[in-house]
Amino acid sequence: MYNYKLVIQYDGSRYRGWQRLGNTGNTIQGKLENVLSEMTGEPIEVTGCSRTDAGVHALAQVANFKTGKRYEESHIKEYLNRYLPKDISILDVESVPERFHARYNAKYKTYLYKIWNREYSNPFMRKYSMHVENKLDVDKMKEASQYFIGEHDFTAFSNAKSKKKSMVRMIYSVTVDQEDGFVLIRMVGNGFLYNMARKIAGTLIEVGLGKLDAGTIPDIINSRDRSRVSFIADACGLYLEKIAY
Amino acid sequence: MYNYKLVIQYDGSRYRGWQRLGNTGNTIQGKLENVLSEMTGEPIEVTGCSRTDAGVHALAQVANFKTGKRYEESHIKEYLNRYLPKDISILDVESVPERFHARYNAKYKTYLYKIWNREYSNPFMRKYSMHVENKLDVDKMKEASQYFIGEHDFTAFSNAKSKKKSMVRMIYSVTVDQEDGFVLIRMVGNGFLYNMARKIAGTLIEVGLGKLDAGTIPDIINSRDRSRVSFIADACGLYLEKIAY
Repeated sequence: MYNYKLVIQYDGSRYRGWQRLGNTGNTIQGKLENVLSEMTGEPIEVTGCSRTDAGVHALAQVANFKTGKRYEESHIKEYLNRYLPKDISILDVESVPERFHARYNAKYKTYLYKIWNREYSNPFMRKYSMHVENKLDVDKMKEASQYFIGEHDFTAFSNAKSKKKSMVRMIYSVTVDQEDGFVLIRMVGNGFLYNMARKIAGTLIEVGLGKLDAGTIPDIINSRDRSRVSFIADACGLYLEKIAY
Repeated sequence: MYNYKLVIQYDGSRYRGWQRLGNTGNTIQGKLENVLSEMTGEPIEVTGCSRTDAGVHALAQVANFKTGKRYEESHIKEYLNRYLPKDISILDVESVPERFHARYNAKYKTYLYKIWNREYSNPFMRKYSMHVENKLDVDKMKEASQYFIGEHDFTAFSNAKSKKKSMVRMIYSVTVDQEDGFVLIRMVGNGFLYNMARKIAGTLIEVGLGKLDAGTIPDIINSRDRSRVSFIADACGLYLEKIAY
């Protein structure tokens, strides 16, 4: 079998997320599999690294698929970019060893959360950022962000359904920066539970608005109590930015 | 009468352009007049500097309106930003002398044309730039851009209907720059005829694609023949960037 790695950029606005849902539903995985199955004449299964949620964007999602035939990387890239919808783009195609697995081999992932922090809306970014009208206290957010770093049980910050799987994740860094009216939160970790990135961003926004004290975050993490984290930041502000292998 | 100057940003994607068309049609001017008439209880007429076309965006359109009552600038700004659709934002409101006229007093205007110049589409910019797949020769475009500078009769580059009004406009500068996959054309002039910015951008794109020789531009301008300029760049790539008074 030949194995190909894809780097994919998409505007998640009109999709139900990455993961295919049976044969129905408008998903990124489904779109890719349809076009690749047409190209190869085989039923193709695409393995994505991150199952981004409905409305979440990707600057560089990584996936792989296997096929019985050998193709030029440039042919796959051109074919996909020609037949995929214009809100999904293939940035790179690479032939990889058969053992390469987009999810299992990922070392760490970076999520970017974009907040538009002006009293008026940004006409061009209303689908690509969360609008927070009140001025955020970025210094407090920076302070709060440090409590997430390290290996923690993130049950309180997830909606993960399984009770059997580990809720422990390693967060390497969380940074908060200001840039031309935006507040940007970058989170780097070895993995993120379902809704975890949006709940961390939401908690940092509550700190920035003065609704939550930064010092209570360790206590919230340790509680493993989901009811302590009620605010989930809008999907449209979240971007899967980078995956390192 | 009190006179107020507005600085307005909008995503033109879903509008039929700036200019109100009777009482029908989805226009920026119409949206502003509706909200201001509600605010004041008077029928308000808004005078815009540039009549941007359907689908064209504005980073900083300027307009003014007159009313019999005095309002705080911050009140007008907040009221408009609360009741306007989210794809129109008011960046600034300023009380100005009664004689101020957004169109007649403008000294020069800057239009920005954004081209996404990669073989694959940009998922986030498909409504906010023109996609040109083949690599543009930016040096040739820079050379060609210089021929537009100066005072010329731009009949060949317009769709203006009136035959009585002057077709002479002064262009102060045209620049072409590359930035992260984009080719950006900036045009500064004392005024632009109907469709002129998009026809200049379209002509520069044809030069960049090698379909037109830069040296023929003076001849096209001098011909005043509209049939010589057939390519009009997409509305979605054009931004009214700045107006100077």
